[in-house]
Amino acid sequence: MLALLVDGRTPADPAGAIAVNDRGLQYGDGLFETALLTGGRVRFLEEHLRRLSAGCQRLGISMPDRQRLLGEVDAIIAGHQAGVLKILVTRGAGGRGYRPSPDLVASRIVMLYPLPDHCSDSGVRVRWCDTRLGRNARLAGMKHLNRLEQVLAQAEWEDPTIEEGLMLDTEGELVCATAANLFIVRDGVLVTPDLRFCGVRGIMRSHVLEQARRLGVAASEEPLWPRDVEAASEFFLSNAVRGLRPIVELDGLRWAPGPVCEELRRTLT
Amino acid sequence: MLALLVDGRTPADPAGAIAVNDRGLQYGDGLFETALLTGGRVRFLEEHLRRLSAGCQRLGISMPDRQRLLGEVDAIIAGHQAGVLKILVTRGAGGRGYRPSPDLVASRIVMLYPLPDHCSDSGVRVRWCDTRLGRNARLAGMKHLNRLEQVLAQAEWEDPTIEEGLMLDTEGELVCATAANLFIVRDGVLVTPDLRFCGVRGIMRSHVLEQARRLGVAASEEPLWPRDVEAASEFFLSNAVRGLRPIVELDGLRWAPGPVCEELRRTLT
Repeated sequence: MLALLVDGRTPADPAGAIAVNDRGLQYGDGLFETALLTGGRVRFLEEHLRRLSAGCQRLGISMPDRQRLLGEVDAIIAGHQAGVLKILVTRGAGGRGYRPSPDLVASRIVMLYPLPDHCSDSGVRVRWCDTRLGRNARLAGMKHLNRLEQVLAQAEWEDPTIEEGLMLDTEGELVCATAANLFIVRDGVLVTPDLRFCGVRGIMRSHVLEQARRLGVAASEEPLWPRDVEAASEFFLSNAVRGLRPIVELDGLRWAPGPVCEELRRTLT
Repeated sequence: MLALLVDGRTPADPAGAIAVNDRGLQYGDGLFETALLTGGRVRFLEEHLRRLSAGCQRLGISMPDRQRLLGEVDAIIAGHQAGVLKILVTRGAGGRGYRPSPDLVASRIVMLYPLPDHCSDSGVRVRWCDTRLGRNARLAGMKHLNRLEQVLAQAEWEDPTIEEGLMLDTEGELVCATAANLFIVRDGVLVTPDLRFCGVRGIMRSHVLEQARRLGVAASEEPLWPRDVEAASEFFLSNAVRGLRPIVELDGLRWAPGPVCEELRRTLT
């Protein structure tokens, strides 16, 4: 980790900086954002804070003061040009059992990590994960701290040449990769899973949909199934840190990087 | 909190005792146990440790050394007669992203809380929760740290005379209360939800099933639905700390404490 602020302070010891009774630890009772720092600026910071705020509202967590959070982000990126900014907000420390007391003050943990190792721009190999995503519309779309399914999914493979795993929900619907959203192009239309039951509504995903409309590419959010992938002319991943990356191989199926993904990449970055 | 050990040590400051990068906080990547300390002894300690160990195995977490954990439990209960023992085990601190590195050392957090306020022995009032439980057989039965659904469910009501909320899964099947298992008696048979898709396999739940068989009461684990509750002659909750408690009211429906629950209580405690 390059830098850390916990509730606005740099802890003397990051290895002992969080309260034992923080509800983030006890119950996964919180949310996070992962954003790209590039050229000394946080990309899509406004959108990340807006999603965080919307998630807090859905969970009944008191969203930290915006100016204070922005000040902490400024402080942590100072002197850094590139990295991964992670903002983690929990409901706070304390409360008896699951029941959240309404007067809790949210915990703010702002972290800066180095950029991940360079990953192939020319296309990624992916696999199917056995671990499924449970359906719950009440939690769908949020980047909350209940992430055991993603942990188990990423634990399924070790081959370093496979960069991502595709996840289905328990009914077999295609949802996302373990840490990215998915897009296909089918009959010239850009399609991404609608995430009505599970998955995270990525910031980059929203930008891709918006940019597609701006470019005159028809775009749609709808249920997708594994068979839709086989029929796709393009297939790619989106992620706030890694951007758009074409999928070139999945279990023997192959795709070439396609024109829709290329134009989106070119105009988005 | 009455006492605390983090990885075997009493932290100088419980408000800063956990690493920021502990995977319990970052992803809810861990498990917990809640046990009753009474008469200076932890009830069903053996069973709690066995469930913890089984959960670690399912999640690929390295179960802490048994003797070390037992020593920490002994240390924390020393001088206390009664309380609630909570053992929280996470996959450990570190690792990049969701992917768990295989060499992590699990974190051990052992806590002793005062007993909860005395709750009615004569029967509890419960309600239906709107928050549903997502189905995922991969996680079903474990007392893992992904507990947002329970948090949201308990946030639904404030009436202190209602002690528990009943939870359905997303398909409408009856699963559990927010922090207890459920039993009904139907045509003389003790029935509890089978938890094949979600819910926690309570230690007290297992004891109730075992004790019923010992008493010659037919017992069954099977899917239950809300309509099964209406037809039940008895309806009760089980929990390792609070024991067995008859439900006396649910949304206008009423039950009297019944003979099966009474006999189980009498012979189990």
